[in-house]
Amino acid sequence: MGEITIFSGSAHIELAQEICHFLGVPLCETTIRRFSNDCLYVQMKANCRENDVFLIQPLVPPVQDHLMELLFMLDAARGASAQRITAVIPYYSYARSDKKDAPRISIAGRLVADLMATAGADRVLVMTLHAAQVHGFFSVPTDHLNALIVLARHFRKYDLSNTVVVSPDLGNAKSASQFAHLLRVPVAAGSKQRVSDDRVIIDTIVGDVEGKDAIVIDDEIANGGTIIEILERLRERDVRKISIACTHGLFTGQAIERLGAQSDVAEIVTTNTVPHPLEKRLPNMTILSIAPLLAEGIRRIHNGESISSLFTDTM
Amino acid sequence: MGEITIFSGSAHIELAQEICHFLGVPLCETTIRRFSNDCLYVQMKANCRENDVFLIQPLVPPVQDHLMELLFMLDAARGASAQRITAVIPYYSYARSDKKDAPRISIAGRLVADLMATAGADRVLVMTLHAAQVHGFFSVPTDHLNALIVLARHFRKYDLSNTVVVSPDLGNAKSASQFAHLLRVPVAAGSKQRVSDDRVIIDTIVGDVEGKDAIVIDDEIANGGTIIEILERLRERDVRKISIACTHGLFTGQAIERLGAQSDVAEIVTTNTVPHPLEKRLPNMTILSIAPLLAEGIRRIHNGESISSLFTDTM
Amino acid sequence: MGEITIFSGSAHIELAQEICHFLGVPLCETTIRRFSNDCLYVQMKANCRENDVFLIQPLVPPVQDHLMELLFMLDAARGASAQRITAVIPYYSYARSDKKDAPRISIAGRLVADLMATAGADRVLVMTLHAAQVHGFFSVPTDHLNALIVLARHFRKYDLSNTVVVSPDLGNAKSASQFAHLLRVPVAAGSKQRVSDDRVIIDTIVGDVEGKDAIVIDDEIANGGTIIEILERLRERDVRKISIACTHGLFTGQAIERLGAQSDVAEIVTTNTVPHPLEKRLPNMTILSIAPLLAEGIRRIHNGESISSLFTDTM
Amino acid sequence: MGEITIFSGSAHIELAQEICHFLGVPLCETTIRRFSNDCLYVQMKANCRENDVFLIQPLVPPVQDHLMELLFMLDAARGASAQRITAVIPYYSYARSDKKDAPRISIAGRLVADLMATAGADRVLVMTLHAAQVHGFFSVPTDHLNALIVLARHFRKYDLSNTVVVSPDLGNAKSASQFAHLLRVPVAAGSKQRVSDDRVIIDTIVGDVEGKDAIVIDDEIANGGTIIEILERLRERDVRKISIACTHGLFTGQAIERLGAQSDVAEIVTTNTVPHPLEKRLPNMTILSIAPLLAEGIRRIHNGESISSLFTDTM
Amino acid sequence: MGEITIFSGSAHIELAQEICHFLGVPLCETTIRRFSNDCLYVQMKANCRENDVFLIQPLVPPVQDHLMELLFMLDAARGASAQRITAVIPYYSYARSDKKDAPRISIAGRLVADLMATAGADRVLVMTLHAAQVHGFFSVPTDHLNALIVLARHFRKYDLSNTVVVSPDLGNAKSASQFAHLLRVPVAAGSKQRVSDDRVIIDTIVGDVEGKDAIVIDDEIANGGTIIEILERLRERDVRKISIACTHGLFTGQAIERLGAQSDVAEIVTTNTVPHPLEKRLPNMTILSIAPLLAEGIRRIHNGESISSLFTDTM
Amino acid sequence: MGEITIFSGSAHIELAQEICHFLGVPLCETTIRRFSNDCLYVQMKANCRENDVFLIQPLVPPVQDHLMELLFMLDAARGASAQRITAVIPYYSYARSDKKDAPRISIAGRLVADLMATAGADRVLVMTLHAAQVHGFFSVPTDHLNALIVLARHFRKYDLSNTVVVSPDLGNAKSASQFAHLLRVPVAAGSKQRVSDDRVIIDTIVGDVEGKDAIVIDDEIANGGTIIEILERLRERDVRKISIACTHGLFTGQAIERLGAQSDVAEIVTTNTVPHPLEKRLPNMTILSIAPLLAEGIRRIHNGESISSLFTDTM
Repeated sequence: MGEITIFSGSAHIELAQEICHFLGVPLCETTIRRFSNDCLYVQMKANCRENDVFLIQPLVPPVQDHLMELLFMLDAARGASAQRITAVIPYYSYARSDKKDAPRISIAGRLVADLMATAGADRVLVMTLHAAQVHGFFSVPTDHLNALIVLARHFRKYDLSNTVVVSPDLGNAKSASQFAHLLRVPVAAGSKQRVSDDRVIIDTIVGDVEGKDAIVIDDEIANGGTIIEILERLRERDVRKISIACTHGLFTGQAIERLGAQSDVAEIVTTNTVPHPLEKRLPNMTILSIAPLLAEGIRRIHNGESISSLFTDTM
Repeated sequence: MGEITIFSGSAHIELAQEICHFLGVPLCETTIRRFSNDCLYVQMKANCRENDVFLIQPLVPPVQDHLMELLFMLDAARGASAQRITAVIPYYSYARSDKKDAPRISIAGRLVADLMATAGADRVLVMTLHAAQVHGFFSVPTDHLNALIVLARHFRKYDLSNTVVVSPDLGNAKSASQFAHLLRVPVAAGSKQRVSDDRVIIDTIVGDVEGKDAIVIDDEIANGGTIIEILERLRERDVRKISIACTHGLFTGQAIERLGAQSDVAEIVTTNTVPHPLEKRLPNMTILSIAPLLAEGIRRIHNGESISSLFTDTM
Repeated sequence: MGEITIFSGSAHIELAQEICHFLGVPLCETTIRRFSNDCLYVQMKANCRENDVFLIQPLVPPVQDHLMELLFMLDAARGASAQRITAVIPYYSYARSDKKDAPRISIAGRLVADLMATAGADRVLVMTLHAAQVHGFFSVPTDHLNALIVLARHFRKYDLSNTVVVSPDLGNAKSASQFAHLLRVPVAAGSKQRVSDDRVIIDTIVGDVEGKDAIVIDDEIANGGTIIEILERLRERDVRKISIACTHGLFTGQAIERLGAQSDVAEIVTTNTVPHPLEKRLPNMTILSIAPLLAEGIRRIHNGESISSLFTDTM
Repeated sequence: MGEITIFSGSAHIELAQEICHFLGVPLCETTIRRFSNDCLYVQMKANCRENDVFLIQPLVPPVQDHLMELLFMLDAARGASAQRITAVIPYYSYARSDKKDAPRISIAGRLVADLMATAGADRVLVMTLHAAQVHGFFSVPTDHLNALIVLARHFRKYDLSNTVVVSPDLGNAKSASQFAHLLRVPVAAGSKQRVSDDRVIIDTIVGDVEGKDAIVIDDEIANGGTIIEILERLRERDVRKISIACTHGLFTGQAIERLGAQSDVAEIVTTNTVPHPLEKRLPNMTILSIAPLLAEGIRRIHNGESISSLFTDTM
Repeated sequence: MGEITIFSGSAHIELAQEICHFLGVPLCETTIRRFSNDCLYVQMKANCRENDVFLIQPLVPPVQDHLMELLFMLDAARGASAQRITAVIPYYSYARSDKKDAPRISIAGRLVADLMATAGADRVLVMTLHAAQVHGFFSVPTDHLNALIVLARHFRKYDLSNTVVVSPDLGNAKSASQFAHLLRVPVAAGSKQRVSDDRVIIDTIVGDVEGKDAIVIDDEIANGGTIIEILERLRERDVRKISIACTHGLFTGQAIERLGAQSDVAEIVTTNTVPHPLEKRLPNMTILSIAPLLAEGIRRIHNGESISSLFTDTM
Repeated sequence: MGEITIFSGSAHIELAQEICHFLGVPLCETTIRRFSNDCLYVQMKANCRENDVFLIQPLVPPVQDHLMELLFMLDAARGASAQRITAVIPYYSYARSDKKDAPRISIAGRLVADLMATAGADRVLVMTLHAAQVHGFFSVPTDHLNALIVLARHFRKYDLSNTVVVSPDLGNAKSASQFAHLLRVPVAAGSKQRVSDDRVIIDTIVGDVEGKDAIVIDDEIANGGTIIEILERLRERDVRKISIACTHGLFTGQAIERLGAQSDVAEIVTTNTVPHPLEKRLPNMTILSIAPLLAEGIRRIHNGESISSLFTDTM
């Protein structure tokens, strides 16, 4: 197997640099620019021949541009005779389009997985998919790392004797359950009710939260609407202290303003699977790095060592 | 488009006959036998050329035999020049193998979907997949019918004023939520705890169930272990009346004995997505037929009419 | 074959409406919006089952968004059981990425063609590809219409007795030659010289242009740089009158300002393969509609009539 | 190339162990069990990453279970990032379904080969296919070892001066011819006659057998019906001594009882391509091991040495 | 389904015309010529859009040219939007390359089948494949017609009371057996012996031929070497009368001279699956037409009628 | 990566030997012969297992035979377990069939590229494709070497102060432009006019040639018709001296006679991408070897070194 050769798209160069730092390899240069007709031009600026190429690109906004960048990078690396190409996608945003809950829509999470295989991905490395089943959308060997352990290690530093983990949605409570078990605390969940065709509200909380310290956890926070709503329900139930945790802290739209206005939130803990520009950081925000985890994953893929033991060994 | 031509594997001929009855077409004969070396021999006994062929086969035990039968039927129909072949799988048992929750396992729900495409399936028609995401495992156009409405219509005949729908598992509570909303009643869920490497127990119930009539719902009941356990938890919480509902009532192993011994269960409601031999029927068991729903789905697929409106129109 | 069913992405709805007008069919609705994490959500709002679906989307800026929209529409129509899906792409911008003129780049015109096949395109209908060879990038049956005849019909109205057709680039002079032959006039071409690594200038004009009326023709005008440069060379050669013609008048960046400042240009003739917002129209600009040509192409594809005779009959 | 890593399905663990013994490598553990709904669960219990994985599984009864086991093992090994996966199938039972001798049947030998490619087989290693053409059914590189040399070496120990090799079927006499040439003796064959639609008898023997020692050879003996019938014809022709040889001694149904009742059969020689439980062994039965041949084949595949010379060197 | 549209390559235009005559459709024109660099240029001169296209081309010498012609015709018809394309190959010469009887060779019969699928064949119609297993080499639906019935009808006109059918090769005696059963006469076969590495002789005849009328049958006669040799063996056994029958009478090399010199051969019966130029016809040669059989096959494929009943009905 | 293993088809064994000489490896033997029915038989006579196999075959006349040879060699090497197979095609003649300039034709350059992928090509190495876009027809990684630099090095030895490079065709003038820039001289081009349906003439020369030394350059000279015609136009313009240069000097048909009759041609320079038998060499012909360039390309592919730097370094 040739040498580890890492390139980054334009989505999150800082993360790529941090991963390279942990691996002790340079970040190879990529030229990404536009033709005058807005078509993308992507060139890998380092030799790929017979190398073990990793392309790092979380699918953050502008999502379509970053996705097309990744597809052109895959094709360029294949045409440049890479021995193996792994798409490293710390945030696979299209994982949320994972089912056909309306007629005549695309299950986009599956289509995007197929597009990556067409473009030349030999392997995929993703982190904390919205649903575990999305793993099955990929036709190439895929490693699915989970950042829950990184978040759990952070919270274990606190006194958790009166704590409950809260999932905003009963239907997606599985990872909240896992997180609760990692912290050895109970779990509760919001129950959503469809009010009208395009409006869903959380009408109640299933489980015991009164007087407790609540850690609200979701895999992803985008505009923060769901989080704000679960906070309101929790306050009605007189929770004692509120923390928020998520793997993918996108904070799009009014999210930062809205979360900043929740004065009773003790801490917002997230990771750097997506970039966090300075203007989108709140005083109570803690950003944990998943670069060591991704770097170790890349190292083990390259060396043919077990990825699964990465979790059993460290948990 | 050629004529509707329906064949059945050996898994559930009664259902195929009932579907044909509703469609007003004959069930075409299939010869299925074994060579002396145990290899399957499958022959379609009616002309398939340029016809719109539907092959009906739920993947019930013995699952591997029924699956291979289906694959050979698909290949035979393709080789016999069918214009289009739809695999009708009322119970897609491998949907439960939908994620990689242990290292070095197959996401079998995806593999089996790929095998069917390889064998010649142009389309798939399934009912009540274990998780909605499994829809995305299929590379061919797939219609996913839901039997919840059939179960809901049955329970709407009763007084539901003091009723709660209970999901045995918090992590899979989405369809229980949907069912509760169809009945306009609240929802509760069991929370599972991993006791040891190979043992999981339901340690608590998240949500309010005391003094209520509980309808425990799951997509599938196999050996009944989970159901028996949630019943115990419910009794500890003094529920008033217990009913059980499920789409796929497999009742394998000791299920019938164990469920028959639960004297306080008012009713067990299931459907005929799987066969129910007489010796596996309990006095309090109600079996609803999904043949009209499948027949209507087949009719609409053949005529190019909307399947989605099948649900919006009738709910 | 089912009925003609036409949808439009958000790139050029006016063109889609005009095509539908000529075909006498309604333009079916498409819902295109963004999730809060910027992922696209695309829904076809009319039944596609067993219909002959055409999706109209030129790949104009923002190109990546319009391309991903098209891919999701293709996948949605396939999942919705369309009988046949044709991607109608009046402007296939990635055709310019048609060769490997630098190491480690993607031949993007080929990759995008493959992505469309992966997403579900059964056929493609394109207009005036940058190079005729790009036709060979598509693995599905593709019809390649040419707008030169539309442009030629316009100029035939004028006195062309002292006219020369000028191609800005000797290396791409083939379609200028064809255009000249349609008008029965001679042809000339600019010869490009590479000044430095990233700068190319037109250093001379090969062919006789002095004292003539020049029609400068290119397949596409983006920021107009090349056109401005050939105009300067032509003025040095004392041409009498200058007109500009192109199929795809993108006019990106400073194109409108720069072209508007060329006071000696008699006419700029282009087509509506791309949208022309009012603020990007110049007084001397003539926009010809290719909707009748596309509509006739769609009609013939649907009816199984010859497309090639479309050109021999009308020329 | 990574290390040789060998797993066995549940079909014939003794053979896998014997092969590992000859190769001097451990047999890695595989967990194979059933979910309560009868679906298979297969887990490879040793790291596969970048290893040269061999999966050993003859397709013996219950054939469908062993085939599905193999398919899940292939998919699991691929998902676990094996560098290369070879399906080692000492007995490929579906090779008998090699032609379309009735309308609307599957050529199952081809379909099963395609299923294995879909599931992830990079290579296949088979032994003594029913017809040499079946090699062409596989789309992946396939090595076809022949056990005739093993059988021939056994018989060469005897006096063969008055011996004739007898094929039960004129239509499949090619390998009997090869065997006869290996032993440098003449060949004869039964001629089958179709009596009715589902009944075929051997009505005569083509070739000279009177007063000779006959070695009846077939690639496979299942229920033994054909062998019993050729024995009757041979006795009518006053053969002197009868021996039976076959590569794949399945002995299904009443085979053991029927063969045990043929008191004039001197010896039944077969190999361990399939398992031979103690209760299915007759006193006159000789079981030759093909483990050394398979082990040597695996070693050469791993080391990139010629397989063909394996035969020319040793014969 | 669109109209039957028939084109012919340059291999056997007379057969194509005869088939068209029986179907009552015109033979559409194909232009086939060479560029000055010897590359083939193939153009279909009739509209293919949405038609049911059949391309007739037996793979006779020069085989590579005829094969490439067929591949270009397939691709052209696909690009021209044919609804369905069937390759009609009355003589599939590469069927003889059906196994790997030497190291590092191609199983060419499989590769050529794959090439045709790549080039656009939706279906294949072949006649009398060298081995029935070759049917399984095709990945697209394939109909395999058998000319034995045409040959049998011819011989049934004679007194067959003292007749034996003789196969030159014991290993390929299956179709000779079928032919013998159609004529209700016994069968015999030559047994081949390998003399040296590249020389095989027929050393004996297995079966009773003395004093009988022998019909020597093979699927194909190329240079006639095998036939000449079996005739010599038959004469040594004092056969009474000799006839020769084959489906594919290629008569390459010295075949005509050698067969013409066999003065005791009563009749050589063959079919027009391959062209028979006047200079290659012998006085005792009878050429039967398989055009009616192919025309009926094409008609049934087009109308979606059973092909298998074509044989059961007429035999 | 296994060892470099080079085989040659029968098209140009001298070139293969020369390449092997530069690489210091032996040319492995290939057996290529015909069966009596004209089917090709191809056998690789050296072990391919896990080796890095290169197959050298320019597609020169007889093109179809050489192409099929190559396809069978690819399939044989794949079946023989080569680790990687590169088709080295110094002259890819089908590159001229690169667009659809008539209805219902195959874009044969694309189809042949697909056939090679089907037959087992993992990579392709080509030289001087007729159009740069043809690179995009290949779905496997492809290296495209350019012989212009070899030709330019030759002409740089001369005084070029009064020289012009002339392309026979305005529409294909791009490589002539590149060649002119390599020599730092101006460029001119013939302009073709279609006289009738099947006749094209060069009616004028675009650019200044009077009194100059002209180097007429084309990628390929087949029957020489175009060259003869441009020479006539150049003489009418009183050029001083004429030289001819081309990469692929096929010289088919009357080319040698016609070129030999042009007494004023100073030199005809070509390369050995195609074989030049002694009887087709003219006194004024110079044949440059591209074997060093191909050998270096093969060496770099094998070692995983950059191919692009091969050009930037040496120019």
